[in-house]
Amino acid sequence: MTIYYPNGQKFQPKADNQNVQHGKRGMTLEEDINTSNDYYLRTNKAVIHKKPTPVQVVHVDYPQRSAAKITEAYFRKPSTTDFNGVYHGQYIDFEAKETRQKQSFPLKNFHDHQIEHMQQVLQQGGICFILLRFTTSNELYFLDASHLIRYWKEQKKGRKSVKKEEIQQDGHAVDTGFNPRIDYLKIVDTIYLDAGSGA
Amino acid sequence: MTIYYPNGQKFQPKADNQNVQHGKRGMTLEEDINTSNDYYLRTNKAVIHKKPTPVQVVHVDYPQRSAAKITEAYFRKPSTTDFNGVYHGQYIDFEAKETRQKQSFPLKNFHDHQIEHMQQVLQQGGICFILLRFTTSNELYFLDASHLIRYWKEQKKGRKSVKKEEIQQDGHAVDTGFNPRIDYLKIVDTIYLDAGSGA
Repeated sequence: MTIYYPNGQKFQPKADNQNVQHGKRGMTLEEDINTSNDYYLRTNKAVIHKKPTPVQVVHVDYPQRSAAKITEAYFRKPSTTDFNGVYHGQYIDFEAKETRQKQSFPLKNFHDHQIEHMQQVLQQGGICFILLRFTTSNELYFLDASHLIRYWKEQKKGRKSVKKEEIQQDGHAVDTGFNPRIDYLKIVDTIYLDAGSGA
Repeated sequence: MTIYYPNGQKFQPKADNQNVQHGKRGMTLEEDINTSNDYYLRTNKAVIHKKPTPVQVVHVDYPQRSAAKITEAYFRKPSTTDFNGVYHGQYIDFEAKETRQKQSFPLKNFHDHQIEHMQQVLQQGGICFILLRFTTSNELYFLDASHLIRYWKEQKKGRKSVKKEEIQQDGHAVDTGFNPRIDYLKIVDTIYLDAGSGA
């Protein structure tokens, strides 16, 4: 069964949500990131938000003297990534995904439009990456989008997933802390802003 | 009556939508901007998208073997602006509004959260502005968010709207063309990137 949240904002239409049991493990990756973004916003460190989940509205009722009520709608596949914003004037854009797989990350967690969007962002000089969590071991990795794009293209040669070792080699482990829970901007500082190495 | 579009993407939950008749005048400002953003994307000039309209989902049906169907939901007030993205590595963030008023733009077209968001973006070094269209005369203006924030604060002194003359003085007229229909990045080039005057 697809998991959703009644407030409409925290729904995660992600491919492998169906196999993940979040309840016993505390917060989802998305909730952790939202919490971290709130922290960044409060401390004037960055302005990064999750985009609303795209919904295709089919029918709306307009009751007199009350709010328009959507009576038929469907979740749509996002055509971009979930998170974007600004940090030190720089454009930040990323996607966050979880898997219960232990040793590899299935590429089916992403889709063509998202990969295309990431390519466009990189081409335009934006900072673009993904956050990948292995939920079973609670390991989180930061991976520049260029690597994901490379893996994605290798699907033509039969690639279906990315091994954890590859992610460890190409990406950066992210510690989970208290405040912010996921300090991904620390990694951004290291690989894009301080050193300027472009990861 | 609130106007909406069945594909779910082009709905404009804007305060003065109720008074605007778009049908006879061709495209809405939002449609014009989406078309321009498509052009920017196709020509590798910038990656700027409209955010999905936020929807508060109350009830979802999960029919077996078919897509989850939202059966009760409501439109929510966006907490940020409608458009954002990246241009030459720079973060771009803006809101677009129309009015049928002839000589002034009512401030009720915006709300507190949006103004707060604009302040945060400016503080973080992002480029933030609004596009305002007077639909009756089909005049379009580009206004740096700092001016809107100043007007907004003057509501305490009784200000309810911004006179067209003020917008003309503080902002920039934008021509409507064919491709792109609204070349707002030309204004961005002039006031932020070329001259670096900060508008």
